[in-house]
Amino acid sequence: MDYEDYFRAQIDTLRREGRYRIFADIERQAGHYPRAIRHDAGATRDVTVWCSNDYLGMGQHPKVLAAMHEALDRYGAGAGGTRNISGTNHEHVLLERDLAELHGKDAALLFNSGYMSNWAALSTLASRMPGCVIVSDEMNHASMIEGMRHSRAERRVFRHNDVADLRRLLAELDPKAPKLVAFESVYSMDGDIAPIADICDVADEFRAMTYCDEVHGVGLYGATGGGVTERDGVAHRLTVIQGTLAKAFGVIGGYIAGSAAMCDFVRSYASGFIFSTALPPAVAAGARAAIAHLRDSGMERDRLHERARTLRRRLDAAGVPHLPNPSHIVPVMVCDPVVCKTISDILLDEHGIYVQPINYPTVTRGTERLRITPSPVHTDADMDRLVSALEDVWARFSLKRAA
Amino acid sequence: MDYEDYFRAQIDTLRREGRYRIFADIERQAGHYPRAIRHDAGATRDVTVWCSNDYLGMGQHPKVLAAMHEALDRYGAGAGGTRNISGTNHEHVLLERDLAELHGKDAALLFNSGYMSNWAALSTLASRMPGCVIVSDEMNHASMIEGMRHSRAERRVFRHNDVADLRRLLAELDPKAPKLVAFESVYSMDGDIAPIADICDVADEFRAMTYCDEVHGVGLYGATGGGVTERDGVAHRLTVIQGTLAKAFGVIGGYIAGSAAMCDFVRSYASGFIFSTALPPAVAAGARAAIAHLRDSGMERDRLHERARTLRRRLDAAGVPHLPNPSHIVPVMVCDPVVCKTISDILLDEHGIYVQPINYPTVTRGTERLRITPSPVHTDADMDRLVSALEDVWARFSLKRAA
Ligand SMILES: Cc1ncc(COP(=O)(O)O)c(C=O)c1O
Ligand SMILES: Cc1ncc(COP(=O)(O)O)c(C=O)c1O
Repeated sequence: MDYEDYFRAQIDTLRREGRYRIFADIERQAGHYPRAIRHDAGATRDVTVWCSNDYLGMGQHPKVLAAMHEALDRYGAGAGGTRNISGTNHEHVLLERDLAELHGKDAALLFNSGYMSNWAALSTLASRMPGCVIVSDEMNHASMIEGMRHSRAERRVFRHNDVADLRRLLAELDPKAPKLVAFESVYSMDGDIAPIADICDVADEFRAMTYCDEVHGVGLYGATGGGVTERDGVAHRLTVIQGTLAKAFGVIGGYIAGSAAMCDFVRSYASGFIFSTALPPAVAAGARAAIAHLRDSGMERDRLHERARTLRRRLDAAGVPHLPNPSHIVPVMVCDPVVCKTISDILLDEHGIYVQPINYPTVTRGTERLRITPSPVHTDADMDRLVSALEDVWARFSLKRAA
Repeated sequence: MDYEDYFRAQIDTLRREGRYRIFADIERQAGHYPRAIRHDAGATRDVTVWCSNDYLGMGQHPKVLAAMHEALDRYGAGAGGTRNISGTNHEHVLLERDLAELHGKDAALLFNSGYMSNWAALSTLASRMPGCVIVSDEMNHASMIEGMRHSRAERRVFRHNDVADLRRLLAELDPKAPKLVAFESVYSMDGDIAPIADICDVADEFRAMTYCDEVHGVGLYGATGGGVTERDGVAHRLTVIQGTLAKAFGVIGGYIAGSAAMCDFVRSYASGFIFSTALPPAVAAGARAAIAHLRDSGMERDRLHERARTLRRRLDAAGVPHLPNPSHIVPVMVCDPVVCKTISDILLDEHGIYVQPINYPTVTRGTERLRITPSPVHTDADMDRLVSALEDVWARFSLKRAA
């Protein structure tokens, strides 16, 4: 077997199917977001980013940067070890307290990414609890799916956001078996939001644990940025609230929050937590600054949601079709992989507007889209340019208009 | 089922077995490493850290800190997205080039941690190659084991560093099946080093790919810090060289290096790469500064190995038993879990010396140890204090002396 040939053939398959990914090589510009510099074939060019998950621009917030600078000077660059072997820095301890408080929970546990927190927490909970059955929303994120898969626990999948279907599945299970209902609050590609209270009702009825991925909710919803679970007043009902520090909070890292015993259990058994160097203290300090700011300030959230509403109104006026949803995510539907990629290239090359095309396997075939993420730092003028560029490509490709 | 009760019972089991981990809560002090401040029950106290994996003190190197400060000012805090969706920053592109060059390979691929790079690369390579069999050293790291397990590929385990056993296993396999030999260069707990050239010979004979975890080798061995594979002149023979940015390089992150097609293959298929926010640009910039410095400067490496030799000589003179090995890691053998923990507590509380006890399951029962990691910044006076403190506890507990 020639391994190189095999690798190349697999890549060629992706190319043929139009699924080969070429990264846009950009330089973010602190203080000028959403402006960035794009590198392409040796040249650079200014672009406006419309697809970042730095939803609130906290990645350039002066308080976040000041906290990171200070921590760098004080503690240095890295943590120097795993949490257990010299890598627990006081900033980690304080951040875990802040995260517990943010969600009104007893404890929280930090991981190196949201991906790792989902993978490690779900695989540990489900594999270390004999006979545990996971009941999982069919649209759950890859990190959750891989965690469940890794646990080798039995898994049942319920129809997306369908509480009746969840109920039906739970009713079929052995009443004595431990159960875990896993879902997200805000689904990142469609921007729809789970009926969390109803899910908790059904889970309670069948004595199941609940696990809610709030990656696209934390910082963005709720009076103090605790996410949709805070907004809906249901945070106390969830067994596990999982989140990221890399989106609304603008830095990197992931976590779970819940009871002290649950967090201690995962802390003690999760390989992906135990055997990996801890986050740099400066990252923890930056995340703490972002969380504290967004706890006290609702301005960024208000402005984000205003921007999303305004963009939707403008798209409606221009007849550019987008998926209606109650969140801050604006999916502009193209529904063809080749056109979607082509449009994205034209926006970038001709208009200096960067919106990544979202194709299969990230979304199902036929629902290819431009996933637009407005933010408080996108001005009306930015929006003018975006909408007129979209009108332009819509006309050029004779794409279907919204009614 | 009462989940809280279950979690508590599982934690109690760990407590009863003496395996419950309590984190030492410390503050690293940039510019004063190995000194740190320890938080305990509301009070703080100065300690000297002797168990960090910031092996060369690069976590406080002025060049690394300057690069991170500058990148923070320039790019802001986080990457803002996954590599594919607005998260590829020019610093990532440059870092991947530097890593490829460091190992004399065509390409490299960055992950959020060494753990994630092992897990994602091994699971992707083995699961995406139909019929692939992994042949794995029995002492491989948890992150490799979980990656192999996740792949669900067939796995055979060879005796630690035993090339004859590896040969025997490979000879038993279907000559046509794709094969991957996975091992480490420096094993972190015993500090022994793999016979890499011999492993490559056998792998070549049976046309197997080779995967070498250089997490405890990069930055520390080889003329430019390319690891043991550089020192031994065998880097070109490995299919995959995996490393971390969190140990000798002092920051955080992990990577693989290899052929362009192999890296592109993993890049295109690894869920843990695709679906997770990229490392902050400032982290990438710090890692680049560390790599560049250690490429041009051998001083830190020389001093590290001198420190390790000196410590061993001093321990020998004091009759404190340590595992002989050809690396920079000095395992002081206690061989009893309770004594090991007690000694570590005494060192910390009475002597202000922090060495984490290493007990089961990190090492096999009966081989409990203090894993001491000398570094260029540990002075002779630090060593005096360490050795006399060890002599003190050795006498107090009537521990077995070395011959
Ligand atoms: C729903 C969801 N969960 C988890 C993650 C992973 O979080 P992180 O980027 O912090 O690894 C993502 C995206 O990246 C996500 O969209
Ligand atoms: C051999 C080995 N591989 C991989 C890792 C994981 O690397 P990281 O700490 O960057 O996650 C470690 C330790 O942490 C290790 O000892």
